[in-house]
Amino acid sequence: MSKINVAVLGATGMVGQRVIQLLHDHPWFQVAAVLASERSAGKPYHEATTWRLEPPEPTVDLIVDRCVPEAAEGCQAVISALPSSTARQAEVAFAKAGFAVVSNAGAFRMDPTVPLIIPEVNPDHLDWIDRQPGPGFIITNPNCNAIPLTLALAPLHRRWGVEAACISTWQAVSGAGYPGESAWDMVANVHPHPGNEEEKLAQEPQKILDADFPLSARCVRVPTADGHLVSAQVRLTGQPSVDEVVQALRAFESPVALPSSPTPLLHVDERRDRPQPRLDVVRGGGMGVTIGRVEACHVMGIKLYCMAHNTIRGAAGAAVGNLELLKVRGRL
Amino acid sequence: MSKINVAVLGATGMVGQRVIQLLHDHPWFQVAAVLASERSAGKPYHEATTWRLEPPEPTVDLIVDRCVPEAAEGCQAVISALPSSTARQAEVAFAKAGFAVVSNAGAFRMDPTVPLIIPEVNPDHLDWIDRQPGPGFIITNPNCNAIPLTLALAPLHRRWGVEAACISTWQAVSGAGYPGESAWDMVANVHPHPGNEEEKLAQEPQKILDADFPLSARCVRVPTADGHLVSAQVRLTGQPSVDEVVQALRAFESPVALPSSPTPLLHVDERRDRPQPRLDVVRGGGMGVTIGRVEACHVMGIKLYCMAHNTIRGAAGAAVGNLELLKVRGRL
Amino acid sequence: MSKINVAVLGATGMVGQRVIQLLHDHPWFQVAAVLASERSAGKPYHEATTWRLEPPEPTVDLIVDRCVPEAAEGCQAVISALPSSTARQAEVAFAKAGFAVVSNAGAFRMDPTVPLIIPEVNPDHLDWIDRQPGPGFIITNPNCNAIPLTLALAPLHRRWGVEAACISTWQAVSGAGYPGESAWDMVANVHPHPGNEEEKLAQEPQKILDADFPLSARCVRVPTADGHLVSAQVRLTGQPSVDEVVQALRAFESPVALPSSPTPLLHVDERRDRPQPRLDVVRGGGMGVTIGRVEACHVMGIKLYCMAHNTIRGAAGAAVGNLELLKVRGRL
Amino acid sequence: MSKINVAVLGATGMVGQRVIQLLHDHPWFQVAAVLASERSAGKPYHEATTWRLEPPEPTVDLIVDRCVPEAAEGCQAVISALPSSTARQAEVAFAKAGFAVVSNAGAFRMDPTVPLIIPEVNPDHLDWIDRQPGPGFIITNPNCNAIPLTLALAPLHRRWGVEAACISTWQAVSGAGYPGESAWDMVANVHPHPGNEEEKLAQEPQKILDADFPLSARCVRVPTADGHLVSAQVRLTGQPSVDEVVQALRAFESPVALPSSPTPLLHVDERRDRPQPRLDVVRGGGMGVTIGRVEACHVMGIKLYCMAHNTIRGAAGAAVGNLELLKVRGRL
Repeated sequence: MSKINVAVLGATGMVGQRVIQLLHDHPWFQVAAVLASERSAGKPYHEATTWRLEPPEPTVDLIVDRCVPEAAEGCQAVISALPSSTARQAEVAFAKAGFAVVSNAGAFRMDPTVPLIIPEVNPDHLDWIDRQPGPGFIITNPNCNAIPLTLALAPLHRRWGVEAACISTWQAVSGAGYPGESAWDMVANVHPHPGNEEEKLAQEPQKILDADFPLSARCVRVPTADGHLVSAQVRLTGQPSVDEVVQALRAFESPVALPSSPTPLLHVDERRDRPQPRLDVVRGGGMGVTIGRVEACHVMGIKLYCMAHNTIRGAAGAAVGNLELLKVRGRL
Repeated sequence: MSKINVAVLGATGMVGQRVIQLLHDHPWFQVAAVLASERSAGKPYHEATTWRLEPPEPTVDLIVDRCVPEAAEGCQAVISALPSSTARQAEVAFAKAGFAVVSNAGAFRMDPTVPLIIPEVNPDHLDWIDRQPGPGFIITNPNCNAIPLTLALAPLHRRWGVEAACISTWQAVSGAGYPGESAWDMVANVHPHPGNEEEKLAQEPQKILDADFPLSARCVRVPTADGHLVSAQVRLTGQPSVDEVVQALRAFESPVALPSSPTPLLHVDERRDRPQPRLDVVRGGGMGVTIGRVEACHVMGIKLYCMAHNTIRGAAGAAVGNLELLKVRGRL
Repeated sequence: MSKINVAVLGATGMVGQRVIQLLHDHPWFQVAAVLASERSAGKPYHEATTWRLEPPEPTVDLIVDRCVPEAAEGCQAVISALPSSTARQAEVAFAKAGFAVVSNAGAFRMDPTVPLIIPEVNPDHLDWIDRQPGPGFIITNPNCNAIPLTLALAPLHRRWGVEAACISTWQAVSGAGYPGESAWDMVANVHPHPGNEEEKLAQEPQKILDADFPLSARCVRVPTADGHLVSAQVRLTGQPSVDEVVQALRAFESPVALPSSPTPLLHVDERRDRPQPRLDVVRGGGMGVTIGRVEACHVMGIKLYCMAHNTIRGAAGAAVGNLELLKVRGRL
Repeated sequence: MSKINVAVLGATGMVGQRVIQLLHDHPWFQVAAVLASERSAGKPYHEATTWRLEPPEPTVDLIVDRCVPEAAEGCQAVISALPSSTARQAEVAFAKAGFAVVSNAGAFRMDPTVPLIIPEVNPDHLDWIDRQPGPGFIITNPNCNAIPLTLALAPLHRRWGVEAACISTWQAVSGAGYPGESAWDMVANVHPHPGNEEEKLAQEPQKILDADFPLSARCVRVPTADGHLVSAQVRLTGQPSVDEVVQALRAFESPVALPSSPTPLLHVDERRDRPQPRLDVVRGGGMGVTIGRVEACHVMGIKLYCMAHNTIRGAAGAAVGNLELLKVRGRL
């Protein structure tokens, strides 16, 4: 079987590099075009890119081209790892040109015709693409905090219904891209996230879960490299016990089988000092979610921590999973 | 005016060192006895102590003695910086021997006859000591998270009443004492606090505020040196606006004037990325509380961050403040 | 082919855990006995051990026993991950009882009858074990800084001869074991290594290389998790050029082929900001050495950086490599 | 006595902020003009500046102006905290316009007519300004590593003569300015300094000390906030003993008395694990140098560590000291 050609938009950035890494030796896909800004266009990929991930650096024998549909000729899909500022225009152009656009950017996440998908949670939202004008389409994945949180809430919402959630995060610096945060701000320091992360987190889980509960978040950057730790204090309909909640989390199974989706997807760790980003971030090849300290909450009923690798499960791997879903559902 | 002699119990540990530092050149008090474990007894203070605070190391020309009342002869009060495990027995012994015991330990914080005091919040609780058997007495200060949190909640509770609070913390490593946390656990890592910090935080603010609201906390250790950042998502009676809350925080004034209490006590910082522990921890000589990001919370009504130096305002300085209160109220 | 049974002494500590991890699914060996202190003896391994490494935690269905030869019955070799304080007595006991003892401890490294081996550098030193009284024997590996340094110096010493070396280190916290360094000392801090690390580093390379050059080291602990970065400013006989030195490093080949020894063993990275511990520590499964910035030194002639994973290549993996060497050389 | 008006070039950057902080309440000087890039010009200082230093933020009731001589009218001197790229042209313009230019930039440090001054070491080099074309002049201070190193070497060079030195550094992130290093690169990581820091360090001490010895440096960035730790392995003429060297360091006295120069200037700390940046950086208000671990070096004769605050003693405070020197020597 020959592999499906994929173009990567924003291929030289930190999420773009993770996409390249994850598609290296992928059973179904191969990177056939690496697209980026004018500044990088025309250079060999490894010359245009300062590789910032752990070695080995996968070999990419491609010349960087500009982010225009013609540059992706011969590809069946594009993964967009563009920053939101440039994603809006580029992604529409590719969709209009007939491409399946799998976006990690925030530009269209809350657009009502664009599905916001975690493949193991709401794969059927994929059908929303039929509402889009075509001939191509755009699908998106949630932001890096919303992904582990929604994966942890999904089995609870299905079984009991989430009524409200108070959220806090301990977010890694890789979530800001490269160069991202200043080291001066992050050495022995943490700081409240000054962007609109809290606002994004307050609405994305509901779109994925077809729900409408209030969610209020406090997002704080901490000096870890990878792995967003998220605390959820949650009110569930019917006030299930801690044991029932743990059982529901352990029983969770993905409705779709994908190469990038690990088993188990949700790892409930019963040790009192877990999850810990530096250690647990590798679970499931960076695609697993570690859940810990499921306990009674005097205010909301249930509290728990969840944690996942923010540039794999929370960004590049999320897009790769959605790309795999497209193939499984016959949309490529 | 001659200074009042004070003995420091647990004088060689990290909180003990901060007490020594804060009482150096204090206008009212002087350290006249440094008491510690058998292992240190008999050695000059500086030989028994590995000074772990920033220089200069104040000169202490005293021989370490054992934690027994006879060793504090000539002192009018003792500050206990003992670990909770040894504090219980020692503090009772000193109180029975007639000493005013100002404790930072957790042993008696929830004892109904022992006042749990932040001098700027509930100085009148000092009268509870009359319920104690005597001839001496014990007073305590809250734990290092409860102090900034209660200081931030106090003006809101007085004005409107706190009905419930969801709390998260980003706690510095100095809170674990010395050697405390393993560096291996804290390099580029955070972890859920495995001790009973969340349980302590769930009940101490209510005792101080004469209140009875539910509070549920998630306490996480992060790789900062000093300064506990605390997030509060709070339900207040009557649902005041963000502006009203900010105004109440700014209007807060301490009912007692003490050498260690800064003006302003609560510093409301309107920058979106504050408070930051490494920068803001120095406010008011480590005795101030920085509050930031007071905003509407979709779940609880109001959310805000507060932050204070955990071994000064949150421990050693808290005890020194209570010692000052004793003098101001004529209890020494 | 059935696997060779191995006992691990000090199996519950940080290096012991790495040995367990590295021997999991090893083609030649299997862990048949886990030995540790009295305190752990009698407990199932996973109960006695707080696993501090990244998951997955390999399953070890063994009961911890005491560090005595009888407890290793049925094993052909023991790997000692004991601290030096307890290693001396235990390792002699096992050697007297007939075991092949592969030690990571410092106790016998400079003993003239005990070979100090990096298998890719001086495998023939193994013959020194014939000088030992028997019936068993002890072999050792160098300390965690000496290993990458000696691997980098070996091809240069063979070709030209090292005349003198000024060394500095940027050492990770895992080198101190667990709990090891206090987080208070390592958050946004570095400090001169207060132990005898500099003295060890000043003599171990010479024993391995059969050389006698003066070496002076400054060893500094820094807040990294894994990976010791070492700077060498070296005087070589004949003053070779930078190009010649790079060529000699690239041409280096191990005289023995071992499962744990990667190809290439020495990775010369030409980027100006490498090696970097957090990124490069994974090369060769943690068994590779990354070398960078080979440049002219105005004082000594040549300068370069080398870096390796300190608890894999520099400790547990070093012992496993020596164990593999024993088998390859027919000494098991 | 009325204060001397000073203009600060590059007033909004990290070093510029430190200059503002150090000149706040200075006994001799006051900031009368804050100059920066076009982008900031016209804005009130606090609006143009994101204050990145610990509070309190000194009040500066000035409008930022452009870096042109006319904007400094009424000032007798300018301190240049400009990046080297823009410093060259601007500093010449101010000198030509008659200003005393005290520069922290690297542009003219090695210019033979421009003195490179540490006021406590080579104040007499100030006379070189008479060689400059006038009517104003430029004086400079060394880079942030060269300052503590040269201060430590000065008494040794005067007494015995330095013949050669091998240097390593553990440099804080503030040395890169703001935003400077990416947090991604510095979390649990260190990396060889990719710029020309090693080259600068190889020649500046000699210019200050009127010497000509070879010096070879390895400069490494580490995740500390402030404080560059420097290791020196030094060959001194006559091979003095460790005791003699310590005595010479302790006996060092500055030939000039300046408000910013602390006593003692060189603090020799005999503890084996010092200096430590996070603790010792505050000595002498950030203007002191802590020296530790003076020991015999098997290769060079003597080795020691020195450490100073890199943006105070190593940059902003260095310029303020030079400004004070100008006044003391009647050059303002």
